[in-house]
Amino acid sequence: MGKSLNTKQFAAALQEAVKLDAEDWKKQGVRPALAVILVKGDPASEYYANSKMKLAQKLGIEYRLIILEADVAEDRLLAEINRLNEDPDTHGIMLELPLPKHLNVAAVSDALLPVKDVDGICSANKWAVYTGEPGLYPATPESCIRILKYFGYELQGKHVVLIGRGETVGRPLMQLLLRENATLTVCHSHTQQLTRHIAQADILIAAAGKANLVTADMVHPRLVIIDAGINETETGIAGDVSPDAMDAAQAMTPVPGGVGTVTTTLLFEHLLKAVKLQKESGVHADVRL
Amino acid sequence: MGKSLNTKQFAAALQEAVKLDAEDWKKQGVRPALAVILVKGDPASEYYANSKMKLAQKLGIEYRLIILEADVAEDRLLAEINRLNEDPDTHGIMLELPLPKHLNVAAVSDALLPVKDVDGICSANKWAVYTGEPGLYPATPESCIRILKYFGYELQGKHVVLIGRGETVGRPLMQLLLRENATLTVCHSHTQQLTRHIAQADILIAAAGKANLVTADMVHPRLVIIDAGINETETGIAGDVSPDAMDAAQAMTPVPGGVGTVTTTLLFEHLLKAVKLQKESGVHADVRL
Repeated sequence: MGKSLNTKQFAAALQEAVKLDAEDWKKQGVRPALAVILVKGDPASEYYANSKMKLAQKLGIEYRLIILEADVAEDRLLAEINRLNEDPDTHGIMLELPLPKHLNVAAVSDALLPVKDVDGICSANKWAVYTGEPGLYPATPESCIRILKYFGYELQGKHVVLIGRGETVGRPLMQLLLRENATLTVCHSHTQQLTRHIAQADILIAAAGKANLVTADMVHPRLVIIDAGINETETGIAGDVSPDAMDAAQAMTPVPGGVGTVTTTLLFEHLLKAVKLQKESGVHADVRL
Repeated sequence: MGKSLNTKQFAAALQEAVKLDAEDWKKQGVRPALAVILVKGDPASEYYANSKMKLAQKLGIEYRLIILEADVAEDRLLAEINRLNEDPDTHGIMLELPLPKHLNVAAVSDALLPVKDVDGICSANKWAVYTGEPGLYPATPESCIRILKYFGYELQGKHVVLIGRGETVGRPLMQLLLRENATLTVCHSHTQQLTRHIAQADILIAAAGKANLVTADMVHPRLVIIDAGINETETGIAGDVSPDAMDAAQAMTPVPGGVGTVTTTLLFEHLLKAVKLQKESGVHADVRL
């Protein structure tokens, strides 16, 4: 019964705009280029790095994949980031997370030049999300909001239940949702009676990182579900919401084919924004947002 | 029926600790001193500056009141802040808000040296609240949490409805409540069916800045209410919650005599923390948190 919020068409439209924008830059002698740093050891990261490479080719964007060994020293990684920060022909830098445990993710993230940080992981961009200032925002939270808007679901005054308060998705999403004037309930691992909270919601956004946490019996026919979970299971990729919940709800994003598809595309939209910021500001490596 | 969460005793205990701490410093030749900058034009601010002066006297803390005209130039105000930042005998600086409209509150707030910013208004301290790093946190949100703990109300797993998402109270309080593992609903001016949300709550924190927004008919006998509102009305100071709601609830902080009493005290607790930070770090004016 529930509608599948397949994002293929939306992503295609975004990609078309990115492609045209990239062509415009190339006419001006600028070749938009994304560098992806992949520290070995996380199979999912290798998969994502690969899917970004394919999309880059499709969009006519230069793609540089830097693969580092799983035991890479932090200094070596920082030196690599610094080299990319200073390279005027690299406009965006994406660091695949998670990093191996011996690396300090906060310190490494903050080494990224904010105007090249296309997935908004450095403190300057997190602060921008918090304050509402311009910046390069993390792609997954933005993806959730953009999908809701694309499908015509109003956020103002609506009650959104968000499951998850993680650094990457939940916390920045809280800020974005409140800025859209949604009434917001944040649930997490300590929440009691999750089902009762979902029963109150107009919109459910699942970003807990736990496969099939929300099941069909927990949802209701008026509910719109955005599933931002991407979990590896023995039977393949699974969202945070059980697929059969779609039939019990009003509408739901599938996994795959929902949030992730738009997120990957937004990284390239951010890259083009980064090119613009870097070119407008003139000076290259000293640029700070 | 409802219990009045009068904070007089709690504040007295906090004050006693501050007083002893201040005496210890004085034995070491350090006289803890708070500077309050009052830009004329807001009667409530004059009242608050005055009540802090009385408390400073009671606690044996030096108090410096700097009064500036309502039309003071921003440069002049910034120069005053800078002078206090550089003065080794001033350990805390409190800027009474709101400022007259011709002054840029963000720029002025960020001029405060973070280790002297006893009410946590500069970006460095806001960021500390957001990330959970150590810092000087804004006193009112901290007051709400400390009062709940003092009276033995557990936050972990509890459903807290927070009304208000303002810079000063609501937004930092969101971070603190989530760090306490509460399930959090944020309501605000665009929220529909506020009563329905309150009906779900274990704890209600009102920080909307709107006199008597919550009335007795909106609360329930299981609800614990923290009223962080301080509104001037024709009949005197009023909270965000109508006083007669106390009888319909389990417990509630009165206004006055609730949150504000603890908040004022916490500013002095922060001052003593600021003294410690400044003395430990050795170098005075270059100290950054």
